[in-house]
Amino acid sequence: MQYHFYVNFANWVMQHCHHSVINSSRGTITGNMAKETKLEDIVSLAKRRGFIFQASEIYGGLAGFWDYGPLGVEMTNKLKAEWWKAMVTESDNIFGVDGAIIQNPKLWEASGHVAGFTDPMVEDTVNGKRYRADHLAGVDSNDLKELSGLLEGKVSPDGNPLSEPRVFNMMMQTWVGPVQDSSSIAYLRPETAGSIFTNYENVRETMRAKLPFGVAQIGKAFRNEISPRDFIFRVREFEQAEMQYFIRPETQKETYEQWRQFAWNFLVERLGIAEENLQWHEHEENERAHYAAAAHDIYFKFPQGFKELWGTHNRTDFDLGNHQRVSGRELSYFDEATRERFLPYVIESSVGLSRMLLAVLVDAYREEEINGDTRVVLKLKPELAPYRFAVSPLLKNKPELVEKAREVYSALKKKYGNVMWDDNGNIGKRYRRQDEIGTPYCVVIDFQTLEDDTVTVRDRDTTEQKRVSSAEIVKG
Amino acid sequence: MQYHFYVNFANWVMQHCHHSVINSSRGTITGNMAKETKLEDIVSLAKRRGFIFQASEIYGGLAGFWDYGPLGVEMTNKLKAEWWKAMVTESDNIFGVDGAIIQNPKLWEASGHVAGFTDPMVEDTVNGKRYRADHLAGVDSNDLKELSGLLEGKVSPDGNPLSEPRVFNMMMQTWVGPVQDSSSIAYLRPETAGSIFTNYENVRETMRAKLPFGVAQIGKAFRNEISPRDFIFRVREFEQAEMQYFIRPETQKETYEQWRQFAWNFLVERLGIAEENLQWHEHEENERAHYAAAAHDIYFKFPQGFKELWGTHNRTDFDLGNHQRVSGRELSYFDEATRERFLPYVIESSVGLSRMLLAVLVDAYREEEINGDTRVVLKLKPELAPYRFAVSPLLKNKPELVEKAREVYSALKKKYGNVMWDDNGNIGKRYRRQDEIGTPYCVVIDFQTLEDDTVTVRDRDTTEQKRVSSAEIVKG
Repeated sequence: MQYHFYVNFANWVMQHCHHSVINSSRGTITGNMAKETKLEDIVSLAKRRGFIFQASEIYGGLAGFWDYGPLGVEMTNKLKAEWWKAMVTESDNIFGVDGAIIQNPKLWEASGHVAGFTDPMVEDTVNGKRYRADHLAGVDSNDLKELSGLLEGKVSPDGNPLSEPRVFNMMMQTWVGPVQDSSSIAYLRPETAGSIFTNYENVRETMRAKLPFGVAQIGKAFRNEISPRDFIFRVREFEQAEMQYFIRPETQKETYEQWRQFAWNFLVERLGIAEENLQWHEHEENERAHYAAAAHDIYFKFPQGFKELWGTHNRTDFDLGNHQRVSGRELSYFDEATRERFLPYVIESSVGLSRMLLAVLVDAYREEEINGDTRVVLKLKPELAPYRFAVSPLLKNKPELVEKAREVYSALKKKYGNVMWDDNGNIGKRYRRQDEIGTPYCVVIDFQTLEDDTVTVRDRDTTEQKRVSSAEIVKG
Repeated sequence: MQYHFYVNFANWVMQHCHHSVINSSRGTITGNMAKETKLEDIVSLAKRRGFIFQASEIYGGLAGFWDYGPLGVEMTNKLKAEWWKAMVTESDNIFGVDGAIIQNPKLWEASGHVAGFTDPMVEDTVNGKRYRADHLAGVDSNDLKELSGLLEGKVSPDGNPLSEPRVFNMMMQTWVGPVQDSSSIAYLRPETAGSIFTNYENVRETMRAKLPFGVAQIGKAFRNEISPRDFIFRVREFEQAEMQYFIRPETQKETYEQWRQFAWNFLVERLGIAEENLQWHEHEENERAHYAAAAHDIYFKFPQGFKELWGTHNRTDFDLGNHQRVSGRELSYFDEATRERFLPYVIESSVGLSRMLLAVLVDAYREEEINGDTRVVLKLKPELAPYRFAVSPLLKNKPELVEKAREVYSALKKKYGNVMWDDNGNIGKRYRRQDEIGTPYCVVIDFQTLEDDTVTVRDRDTTEQKRVSSAEIVKG
């Protein structure tokens, strides 16, 4: 629908605008300013324009938690819809699930997260504050012996003696039911993948699926990060989009390549991210998660450097094997054609939606000089922009202009959905405001509209203004 | 888009089918069977056909938690999209947010949930099991003194002495950060409304909103129910769709009526729920939540009886007043026209999405006798059905039929999205299976298709079969 809209509108511009131009004007863009985009620029824009707010801001916030404002929700919804469409709707053999955030804790014992999803920590023996042992020791290691040796004689940042390093589980813990004891402990899922594996057999059976097939899920996950940082990049509550593709083991190599390619293409073609902002990063053996036999991340050039955005992992039969062993339920697959029974391998495609949103914002952010002024502009793919059109009367105190503008606004909104009414300040200020939120087209109704029914359509990227008949813009 | 699809398809049927009918056949439906729909019927269908599974089923499940399977996700996504469209996209003054599930705990102190969101409980003094005191006492009361009196001398279900009744908070608790002590306690939100109130000022400012305006949110919430029950009706993890409408206090009566009407119309017109399955229930003063000055629920006729589905509440200035007091932040509104400063009142519209899905399934569920056989059919509104079309070759071992059917399938899928390929079993079985999941139209490609390019289109509700040209069905 969004894609169709864009194609339709682009066609319409091509077919009609050149004929309909009555006058045309544009600012002189003297190019992107030399300045590098800083994370603070994005944080400030996100807060100022209603994309992302600190969670519980009026209570001083809570580290690692963020709320999405009106524009952030609209963009995130579009990112989710695009991923779901590419992954599930357009596919013949990938099925969606939506598992509970809280599962039976045995799931996380089987997955290895209860034992293995840990960071080495040391405690200040006087005030009880905890620190990442590897950070204090200044090494990239989680070997407790090595860390213990390196930390010998060192003190905490408050000058107090330190405890021996020990492991700290990053899963957030709660209790289910009225009694709070060890039998009622449960965890907030650290990744959505868990309930995909436990539902593997249910999906296969109800969908009559045959290998290869995939199961996809979008949902929240939680990690008790010691040092949440970099805005929505490293947070304690986040949304993932994950797909596990179940395959015959001997097809692992080509399937792995296929899903690496899918991720790259999605970012470039569907989200419009510039290829020079992306790079591959292959995990060395010591960086890989405990379940992965191979892992390739796509790194995006965030303001703080190239960092992980989208992972493709070969999880082998690690997960199904563990769940089969711990649950005692048969999870092998019987291939009717070859009469073989085996555990499928799993190729995983996993991306964080908060990081995806951040990447799209960073990629689109520009500061430009235009007619001697500075403007901030989000050069978003039109399908991803929070609003498709902004409609304004030239002057808000002229009822005849307002009435006509309302008419155009209603017609566009009925047809295209997210259309904004903007009558605050003068036209120049409105354009700057719409540039900041990435609105591709601003439509202005002025006195000439009342005479010849043409409106001004202003293009976000070129700042070019053209006059078009209002019937045509509504017709699309 | 879904609506347009339906209208277009309906038009197409009206314009083309009568002319195109080559032959027509239908089963004889001898009416809905007298049997009342039981919750078990829905649970069984949901599991059998991939709507809803027990969470962590292979580990014995976890009481009060459910996973949504491929069909349940598709339907829930449609329900969410429909609500969002009606509430946010089609409105001029309602804005979306998506707040974190975990917020600064001060939010829940201010909202009254830390002190007031409680159930009275008693403990078995021997084995520590807890019970709802009001249930054991056999009264509908949360007065501790009254309960204590009624329970005097009573024993637990295991025959042991009981503790005095005390309050048990229904919020699920966790810790944020490396230290687990009272300073790091946080809660999983018991309702989405909280982060709407804390973002009231952020939304007003960034959207330049003037009263009345609304803030809407869809998201997970958690309640540590003592006795989760009735499938997805009373659960510990659920998804809410809530909208808080901020108003001038003197408009509370008419705004309240407006949002009551909205809820009723949404259920009847947009979801197609039969009005005889809905009724109003006005809360008496002693049933109302601690924040509500007035509350009307729409009850739906679930198999276990008429029960709460959608609430409209007058929350007055309870929430903004409390948050202003506890946070010390000014949350009053300055009306530029009247030069008045005041705290807005809030009318809340709140519905559980899991209950909405259950209501839609129950409302649509039928067992019918047809040609002497029994069929289960979901008479869903076509826009809400998981699949719009199922496409089948008459025989799966005839390559020329399969190839032609694949062609029709691909064309329909490209155009309409959720289209199912179904070549399992014979045609009769396929129809029964598609009836069970509510697929409005089954398209069958047979030998005649190869000759005259017509396909059979079978209508779910009437079971009527018509022959239409395959080009026409794809053209829509």
